[in-house]
Amino acid sequence: MSDQPIDPSVIETANERQSGDLASDLAALGEQLDRRGISIDRIVEAVRGFTVAVPSWGVGTGGTRFARFPGPGEPRGIMEKLDDCAVIHQLGRATPSVSLHIPWDRDDPAALKDKATSLDLAFDAMNSNTFQDHPDDPKQPLSYKFGSLSHADPAVRAQAVEHNLDVVEFGRAVGSKAITVWVGDGSNFAGQSDLSRSFERYLESARTIYAGLPDDFRLFTEHKMYEPAFYSTVVQDWGTNLLIAQELGPKAFCLVDLGHHAPNANIEQIVARLIFARKLGGFHFNDSKYGDDDLDAGSIDPFRLFLVFNELVEAGETLERLHPAHMIDQSHNVTDPIESLLRSADEIRRAYAQALLVDRAALRGLQDDNDALMASQCLKQAFRTDVTPILAEARRRDGGAIDPIAAYRASGYRERVAAARPASRGSGGGIV
Amino acid sequence: MSDQPIDPSVIETANERQSGDLASDLAALGEQLDRRGISIDRIVEAVRGFTVAVPSWGVGTGGTRFARFPGPGEPRGIMEKLDDCAVIHQLGRATPSVSLHIPWDRDDPAALKDKATSLDLAFDAMNSNTFQDHPDDPKQPLSYKFGSLSHADPAVRAQAVEHNLDVVEFGRAVGSKAITVWVGDGSNFAGQSDLSRSFERYLESARTIYAGLPDDFRLFTEHKMYEPAFYSTVVQDWGTNLLIAQELGPKAFCLVDLGHHAPNANIEQIVARLIFARKLGGFHFNDSKYGDDDLDAGSIDPFRLFLVFNELVEAGETLERLHPAHMIDQSHNVTDPIESLLRSADEIRRAYAQALLVDRAALRGLQDDNDALMASQCLKQAFRTDVTPILAEARRRDGGAIDPIAAYRASGYRERVAAARPASRGSGGGIV
Amino acid sequence: MSDQPIDPSVIETANERQSGDLASDLAALGEQLDRRGISIDRIVEAVRGFTVAVPSWGVGTGGTRFARFPGPGEPRGIMEKLDDCAVIHQLGRATPSVSLHIPWDRDDPAALKDKATSLDLAFDAMNSNTFQDHPDDPKQPLSYKFGSLSHADPAVRAQAVEHNLDVVEFGRAVGSKAITVWVGDGSNFAGQSDLSRSFERYLESARTIYAGLPDDFRLFTEHKMYEPAFYSTVVQDWGTNLLIAQELGPKAFCLVDLGHHAPNANIEQIVARLIFARKLGGFHFNDSKYGDDDLDAGSIDPFRLFLVFNELVEAGETLERLHPAHMIDQSHNVTDPIESLLRSADEIRRAYAQALLVDRAALRGLQDDNDALMASQCLKQAFRTDVTPILAEARRRDGGAIDPIAAYRASGYRERVAAARPASRGSGGGIV
Amino acid sequence: MSDQPIDPSVIETANERQSGDLASDLAALGEQLDRRGISIDRIVEAVRGFTVAVPSWGVGTGGTRFARFPGPGEPRGIMEKLDDCAVIHQLGRATPSVSLHIPWDRDDPAALKDKATSLDLAFDAMNSNTFQDHPDDPKQPLSYKFGSLSHADPAVRAQAVEHNLDVVEFGRAVGSKAITVWVGDGSNFAGQSDLSRSFERYLESARTIYAGLPDDFRLFTEHKMYEPAFYSTVVQDWGTNLLIAQELGPKAFCLVDLGHHAPNANIEQIVARLIFARKLGGFHFNDSKYGDDDLDAGSIDPFRLFLVFNELVEAGETLERLHPAHMIDQSHNVTDPIESLLRSADEIRRAYAQALLVDRAALRGLQDDNDALMASQCLKQAFRTDVTPILAEARRRDGGAIDPIAAYRASGYRERVAAARPASRGSGGGIV
Repeated sequence: MSDQPIDPSVIETANERQSGDLASDLAALGEQLDRRGISIDRIVEAVRGFTVAVPSWGVGTGGTRFARFPGPGEPRGIMEKLDDCAVIHQLGRATPSVSLHIPWDRDDPAALKDKATSLDLAFDAMNSNTFQDHPDDPKQPLSYKFGSLSHADPAVRAQAVEHNLDVVEFGRAVGSKAITVWVGDGSNFAGQSDLSRSFERYLESARTIYAGLPDDFRLFTEHKMYEPAFYSTVVQDWGTNLLIAQELGPKAFCLVDLGHHAPNANIEQIVARLIFARKLGGFHFNDSKYGDDDLDAGSIDPFRLFLVFNELVEAGETLERLHPAHMIDQSHNVTDPIESLLRSADEIRRAYAQALLVDRAALRGLQDDNDALMASQCLKQAFRTDVTPILAEARRRDGGAIDPIAAYRASGYRERVAAARPASRGSGGGIV
Repeated sequence: MSDQPIDPSVIETANERQSGDLASDLAALGEQLDRRGISIDRIVEAVRGFTVAVPSWGVGTGGTRFARFPGPGEPRGIMEKLDDCAVIHQLGRATPSVSLHIPWDRDDPAALKDKATSLDLAFDAMNSNTFQDHPDDPKQPLSYKFGSLSHADPAVRAQAVEHNLDVVEFGRAVGSKAITVWVGDGSNFAGQSDLSRSFERYLESARTIYAGLPDDFRLFTEHKMYEPAFYSTVVQDWGTNLLIAQELGPKAFCLVDLGHHAPNANIEQIVARLIFARKLGGFHFNDSKYGDDDLDAGSIDPFRLFLVFNELVEAGETLERLHPAHMIDQSHNVTDPIESLLRSADEIRRAYAQALLVDRAALRGLQDDNDALMASQCLKQAFRTDVTPILAEARRRDGGAIDPIAAYRASGYRERVAAARPASRGSGGGIV
Repeated sequence: MSDQPIDPSVIETANERQSGDLASDLAALGEQLDRRGISIDRIVEAVRGFTVAVPSWGVGTGGTRFARFPGPGEPRGIMEKLDDCAVIHQLGRATPSVSLHIPWDRDDPAALKDKATSLDLAFDAMNSNTFQDHPDDPKQPLSYKFGSLSHADPAVRAQAVEHNLDVVEFGRAVGSKAITVWVGDGSNFAGQSDLSRSFERYLESARTIYAGLPDDFRLFTEHKMYEPAFYSTVVQDWGTNLLIAQELGPKAFCLVDLGHHAPNANIEQIVARLIFARKLGGFHFNDSKYGDDDLDAGSIDPFRLFLVFNELVEAGETLERLHPAHMIDQSHNVTDPIESLLRSADEIRRAYAQALLVDRAALRGLQDDNDALMASQCLKQAFRTDVTPILAEARRRDGGAIDPIAAYRASGYRERVAAARPASRGSGGGIV
Repeated sequence: MSDQPIDPSVIETANERQSGDLASDLAALGEQLDRRGISIDRIVEAVRGFTVAVPSWGVGTGGTRFARFPGPGEPRGIMEKLDDCAVIHQLGRATPSVSLHIPWDRDDPAALKDKATSLDLAFDAMNSNTFQDHPDDPKQPLSYKFGSLSHADPAVRAQAVEHNLDVVEFGRAVGSKAITVWVGDGSNFAGQSDLSRSFERYLESARTIYAGLPDDFRLFTEHKMYEPAFYSTVVQDWGTNLLIAQELGPKAFCLVDLGHHAPNANIEQIVARLIFARKLGGFHFNDSKYGDDDLDAGSIDPFRLFLVFNELVEAGETLERLHPAHMIDQSHNVTDPIESLLRSADEIRRAYAQALLVDRAALRGLQDDNDALMASQCLKQAFRTDVTPILAEARRRDGGAIDPIAAYRASGYRERVAAARPASRGSGGGIV
């Protein structure tokens, strides 16, 4: 029996009111899909099997360099973060695991594991932090102001490598099987760092981390075009990320954060290329309009999210062998983080469900005939299908809420934790 | 007699060593310019007359939402910031004024004015801050999380208007003649705010501020494409900024921050259009590669900076009537802010000096003949001219350092203030 | 009685087969909308009333500077183009008017009008062409290589003005009430043209055209960031476009081509601002990922198209007074142009129908409460609704095809015209 | 003895007038560089050794999809193109080789070789064209409308492969040692082609071409973000290009066209990464502001061009082993192509000369000390140096013109060929 942060009767009561409409919508959609040769039940079951990890840091309010505007009841530590994650999973049934960030979430691994188990949660990929200084942390005497894994000073590199190995060890202790390495290393001015030498130093550090991985661990490296470095970033794009994964070896894979690309980039094609190279490690889901905006998944360009999932579904068995990690990575600046994560998980499943509706045999035929118009219509038909009842039904079957945000609001959870967790002070910028 | 933060003998000693080379380089350049029909002395004198304001916040180390890595000897308040600004002006002779930011720099106006006078400094345009909450400030009980001048709640708008009027009053007290209004108002999600109603609320607030301006005050509004808002920004581009200045009246002008535009935007053309509309109010100088990177002026694309100055010089008398304000607005994340501001002022003057070298009569002729190649070569010749000796000579004549960064390092100023100003704590993100 | 290019029995036969499924889908959607307080019939009727013009040039195959790959049965002149336009309207019932381009479509106005009337078509805004040379046209002895309305040579400007006045006159003769002026004027190199003087020349020319407008005519000016000019474009963005419309007077309005903006631009906000300024003249609909790609409307970012229509619906009465012109402007490089125009008109109506589904009272309440999450969900719910049955029903009621592309293919029209119209030669690039 | 298209006395006369000023400027610069520890003579000699190929198509006027505005005296075939190329090399002494494009330049190889030899020219990398249809070419019965090397139809792929092998054979016959393969393959709509399958077909075709290469031949593949395909491009970025070169083998390398990247991309870092991977094959030099604008090298962002050369000089011996090919690839829409190519070669040499001035030992020390400011100033000092006299002196020593564009204009060459070559007809768009 797990500790359930929300009284199940809240969910039951809400579901009861909504189950009639859901049944009606589901039947209508089922009939329509039937005509298209699709069993709605198969889609519902596939959706039930699709999950995505939430980031521990995502349940706190994010910010920008200009300001952070905290909300009520923010979690004060990893244990409270796990409580919030449990709410998300209890209502949405799509997020059974949590991605930890060290040192932010450093705690007793056994206690963490117990807490997670009691909440029906597990731990997905670990995240190491070498983009901030933690002046109170005796393990980090040296500053990362000028880089970490690629720093010119071997002592700083050694410290950063050591931290990553610590994170792997911590991950092993809590049952994680992967570490995601994202560094902010780069430069703000042409000439500030040597683009080649800094990359070679990065590789040397990464090789040492790789050598310390347990056999069943994977290493995900993450590229990003810019920010915090504003002229060059050591791991700036998927091409560099690919080089890294190739240099390191078979346990090294590339992580794709949807917000880390150049304007206009065709991200779904990058995904296809990494699948071709057998180096797709996983995703950080979010959405963005201008830069690394870290907005809720699917909120800016839902068609793009669908197209990414179209590649995943298309890849079939190859993807199964790669079994990429699915993680949300967002900054919730103006919403209740629990709500944003609930709907983001929903949007991710929506894109997946829509991708499952694509008539792949027909699509292949249209592509081979160069029937550009009907091929694109074929994809669009799947995208246009309103799969909301499928998502709701998947949750319902798993004991979640038909309308999780409404149920969350009805539960009074935020008000309870606002009372229990004194407001944090300060409006300083940043994600801390 | 002003308090001089740097012992003048430091400058004199350094200059003595370099004056021979400077004279030689100046003579060679003078001979070359003479052949092009240009009196180098006229350019040196024009450069001496060109100044730019430094932002009070610029002498502290900036950061990103991920982290801030403070440097040694950071100023702890506006008085120490003024000391640092005085260093910049003493060495570079290009930055006789300071742009204040309220509430960051709130202090006794009379004391501020005395301090500035003693340091040979004056105050340029004031800046109001309604993009952060200041929980300890009794004047700001309401949060700006969801906007300020355009907030849906009239009470928040009233508070923001009041703050701006306070800043105007403060500016009047310290001798400023303008206020720059930049707001972060906008939304992160389509639907979050009504694009039209929020703009109308913004205008209503701005009209109230405008109505409270002294007769000799100007109001600069500043546009920005995104950040901190990531889906829509109320004053998102120069078109909206122009509408605002038109709605408000003859004391309202548009401020152009070089880093606040869409990728690939032709900023010099925007400057030309605002000059045409008689609404160019001034600049926030900086440089950027990806977004609002706030890098040192001229560091990423020096030709672009030159092209902006080419428009200013080209505009001639029209520009004189507009007398736009020149201000630096940068975030110094990896350099000593004093050094970055010294070289940025130098780069700005460099672009100005290069623009003065353009043979305008020849250029017009080539343009009218559609001699695209020679017209562009004509501009390029001016840009390619290394005006370093002109900039150095302008400083030398004004008592500044031939090589201001070298002189600054020789002076030991940073070491002195590092000892006198205890290190600030924390590596939280942001610009605060 | 109009000439119908497609045998009505083709439509009837196809519709008969599909009407059962349509009725079923319509009923299911109607029930769902009913629960949301929306009468599906009202939406169907509103959609029936919404139309968009097709561009005469759009029924030919487009190309890029690298190549043009013609398709079978391309129309060889304006009369054949009108035949193709009639097919589109007969099947889709959404495109009752055609936008002409002079000199491409120059012909006897009376004959054109008769032909159009016989096909149940009318003429929307005229388009003037001063971005190409037509060596065989005695009316264009001077080249537009270096510009037209802004050319340095007054004789070229006069020729371009004269051409525009001719186009207005031609438009008056065929029953059009507006002219769209898009020029390619600009420069490829900094310095090639004076950014201010060329704009002033443009304005002078535009004033002369404006002065020659009939009383009931509107002048739409169209901005574009770049191409064919690659450094500066005289009418580069909506800010400049607004200045032009303000300078010219009450019959001058700004036309928004969705593909003519900077990367990441928030186009729906530009639309909102032009509505605020009472200067929104109309649209050129299309879609794009990288530049002015001129792809089928809604094909790249359907959510963005929806958000534009959301602004239009939101504007209500203000918009009715502006009554903006709706025109498609696309380049069909790899599809049958008739099919692309059919589906584009469908996508445009889709976005309109979705925008009609937004619960505006609820949205305003959520916005005023700063409930960012539910406000964005409110918009998304409308967008996610699959309005396909509504669009089909609107066509059906107007005598069009439930599935127009399938009916078109069944009709054999393309095969017929392929036989009747000999293939054009050459694979030269361009849009001609 | 070579045929010299320009009477040498034109050059001599012009040089005589300018040699005094050149000597004076050179002496002044030499003295300045001497102080920086640099021998100006070594730089002049290095510049003399640096050459770049001109593209045969570059001597014709380019265009856009909207129009092409031909200039007087355009070459009507490859022999006349070679004459024009000879003018460029005779005056500028920087462009001793020509890059051919087949089928545009198909002719008798022996005759071509003779002609080139007589003009003192050689042939650099060949270019194959599978992005256009040539209806009169019996070797191309099948259309490339839907792709070439990646086409769904194996017959089209075979035709495209065969064409490339023909080009290799042609190249061998004229003394070329490399082929550049750029394809426009891609799609305009999501779904039109399968992103993975089309890439695998591309690879299969490329492998066949690779297998047919002579031992001393290199294969350069070229990536491009978009255009002519507007949704996806098969070889869209350097990551995909790298995968290709890795798949093919040791004679396969990546070609970098400066204009083929996403907005804001850090191209110099891509160059550094390809050097790291030992896969940098060469460059297509040009400049761009918005897309693949194909403007004159260095005209938009001269600092960026310098930074690319900074990487090349920095790479030292590694680069020597790679010996990348240097080619110009531009579209001259508004200038005399000969003049644009003269100045572009000059700008490329300028960037090279500036990169040679960087004090690399000092830079490394500053980088290792994380002295971001002085490191960037170190690079900037080199960039700011006006190396014009060095470029002129290198030409002078090689018998070229001190001011090649002035000498070209004085020579009357354009007027002569305008008389000899009847004007081409038509203003159709495109590059043909």
